[in-house]
Amino acid sequence: GSMSAVKLEECRQHIRAQLDSVVDFWLKYSHDTVHGGFFTCIGKDGNIYDELKYVWLQGRQVWMYCRLYRTVDRFRKPEILKAAKAGGAFLRKFARVSSSSGQWKCAFCLTRDGKAVKVQRSIFSECFYVMAMDELSRVTEDQDMQLEAEQMMEQLIHWVRVDGSGLGRPQLPGDVPTNSMAVPMMLLCLVQQLSEDRRGVEQKYAELGSWCVQQILQHVQRDGAAILENVSADGSELPGCLGRLQNPGHALEAGWFLLQYAAERGDEQIQTTAIQKFVELPYESGWDKAHGGLFYFLDVDGHCPTQLEWSMKLWWPHSEALIALLMAYSQSRKAELLQSFFQVYEYTFSHFPDPAGGEWFGYLTQEGKVALDFKGGPFKGFFHVPRCLYMCERILDDLLANSITFITIVVVKGTV
Amino acid sequence: GSMSAVKLEECRQHIRAQLDSVVDFWLKYSHDTVHGGFFTCIGKDGNIYDELKYVWLQGRQVWMYCRLYRTVDRFRKPEILKAAKAGGAFLRKFARVSSSSGQWKCAFCLTRDGKAVKVQRSIFSECFYVMAMDELSRVTEDQDMQLEAEQMMEQLIHWVRVDGSGLGRPQLPGDVPTNSMAVPMMLLCLVQQLSEDRRGVEQKYAELGSWCVQQILQHVQRDGAAILENVSADGSELPGCLGRLQNPGHALEAGWFLLQYAAERGDEQIQTTAIQKFVELPYESGWDKAHGGLFYFLDVDGHCPTQLEWSMKLWWPHSEALIALLMAYSQSRKAELLQSFFQVYEYTFSHFPDPAGGEWFGYLTQEGKVALDFKGGPFKGFFHVPRCLYMCERILDDLLANSITFITIVVVKGTV
Repeated sequence: GSMSAVKLEECRQHIRAQLDSVVDFWLKYSHDTVHGGFFTCIGKDGNIYDELKYVWLQGRQVWMYCRLYRTVDRFRKPEILKAAKAGGAFLRKFARVSSSSGQWKCAFCLTRDGKAVKVQRSIFSECFYVMAMDELSRVTEDQDMQLEAEQMMEQLIHWVRVDGSGLGRPQLPGDVPTNSMAVPMMLLCLVQQLSEDRRGVEQKYAELGSWCVQQILQHVQRDGAAILENVSADGSELPGCLGRLQNPGHALEAGWFLLQYAAERGDEQIQTTAIQKFVELPYESGWDKAHGGLFYFLDVDGHCPTQLEWSMKLWWPHSEALIALLMAYSQSRKAELLQSFFQVYEYTFSHFPDPAGGEWFGYLTQEGKVALDFKGGPFKGFFHVPRCLYMCERILDDLLANSITFITIVVVKGTV
Repeated sequence: GSMSAVKLEECRQHIRAQLDSVVDFWLKYSHDTVHGGFFTCIGKDGNIYDELKYVWLQGRQVWMYCRLYRTVDRFRKPEILKAAKAGGAFLRKFARVSSSSGQWKCAFCLTRDGKAVKVQRSIFSECFYVMAMDELSRVTEDQDMQLEAEQMMEQLIHWVRVDGSGLGRPQLPGDVPTNSMAVPMMLLCLVQQLSEDRRGVEQKYAELGSWCVQQILQHVQRDGAAILENVSADGSELPGCLGRLQNPGHALEAGWFLLQYAAERGDEQIQTTAIQKFVELPYESGWDKAHGGLFYFLDVDGHCPTQLEWSMKLWWPHSEALIALLMAYSQSRKAELLQSFFQVYEYTFSHFPDPAGGEWFGYLTQEGKVALDFKGGPFKGFFHVPRCLYMCERILDDLLANSITFITIVVVKGTV
């Protein structure tokens, strides 16, 4: 009721200020004005400790800048557009590497001046390339760029659904086809990206979107009691550590992707599954009752995961949890979801942000101590933090707009 | 003096008992009597939590069993030989995968029944294959097997010194040739393995051994003030995180490889460098003054490493430090080295062994709490712990044999 509305208004103000501050941090420290693109290895106080350019993070930063520029009035600034364009130009010029198969493959990592250092045998560099190009094309209205995004998307679909040999992994008899959560999640995200406000494209990718949702739902295992990160191609549990692995942050991220999908279609069944299985379940099983925060990895049978960092508290599962819980609350108005949101909110904002140096720390020990003190690194760029703040601000705007009359009444009563 | 001798005798007894107990653990839990080879994913109390067979660890366990069988009377037991032979047969039958180039490549990971799951684009599976086959051939006197080890060695030399394209990594313009410590270290280890008590083979690999030593010495950087894990092919410092990375455990392991090499040749210059630069320096810079124990990774300029596990305390750097410090002491008789050995000994035996479940824990937090509670995993097998205990027992045998007169005198005096 009124308490929640007041508290949500405080959250909104705080999140808004955090987003402004985080955007300022990256505008100030990350731009390479010589070669274009972004430095992402940024230390505690803004120092660049490595000049390598990670393609995932280049693509994500272009996307995030463009999204903010396009949809939030106060970020419609020339310097943001200029940096996004320079990042896009850098990616177009350098990210794609020639491959013997003639297929488009993106590097994982480039030197400051754009020479390829490493290529991964997975689809994710290409996914963030598509995200960047599509969103940039919406800002610049560059039709060629949008076409390029769709061409790369066709390549991705071919790798995932037809023939993955172009990714360069040798076919091995013991390497059974696996449905890893990341793949359908990422493709669903791209379907939503490419389809937004474009009827023709929406129809083109409708079947793919539905397929992605089904692939994601296959990760509900153990009679609905757990989300598993990897399942077999036919949706059954895989043996060993791989099969038992849980990644609560990933499940929560899939949760809000599904909630968006359900909302677009008014699909209550997917909405219910998303809330119960992909939001409530991973939040409950992933939360560390002893020290607070979300574990990075867990084993569904309680064995110790083999990932050395399993018990660490990373920034991004908390970012995704905030979006998922707030979106689930806004769609369902279940009070428990708002309470869970406040619990994650409290942990997140008392542990991750660095008021002195700006931005968030990314990696805490299980007990909540900062374990790695940089603000950007090979996997932490301008993405999860600002996307979380941006999404939460928008959801809070909607929630508070709808409760404004109620708040007014409470305030008037209070002054009498 | 006398105090040290008494203390060293206590160490020897403890280490001997630890080695017996660790061997018992693996004999009891790790053997796959159905398919041959070894389970290595072994939980806190001996339970197998994953049946995958990691080729590094298969090869290392064959090597360690054979080495114990061949050189330590109390381990000359039929069950050890039988398990080593079964492991060797499993490796020979399943580890090598066909490659398009016609070159021999070993898998990184196999299913329980030997189907290849993953192939790495590096040389290490093949290195441990050579170690296993050579040591097994010494026990079984199988000349074909020894020949096979040398053939695989030729393949390794070709990849490292002539043409690495057969490893399957694409050539990329930003991927400059790098001298990573692991490569010359591993090859030097194999030279020593293949050459032991074989004059012809020793001569065949003499130039390679010398080249490996020079490649290792190139890692002494910053005017002798630091060992860096990766340097350029011409021995200069590389830019960024890669160039600044330090791995104290690795440097210490290289240290005792160099000490062995120096002792075989009576080369005092290499001995001095090994002690000062590869034992004392990484021990001093790698030791955590606040919480004790050796860091896993450090950045030479004090930046935060990007490896999430950088501040964790792993079992193997401590195993390597014990060997390196004790060997350096036995060669130099510098009292400070013995003090350092006792410091690492104290930390190691008060933190890693699990008296209840047997074997050692492998992964502690910076503060020394067990972070991963399994006894074996994808990278922890029957190798670093028993090799450390075996090497230290031997060195202590030598040290104590030479001080026996002195100890006797002290004891006699004490009783007067």
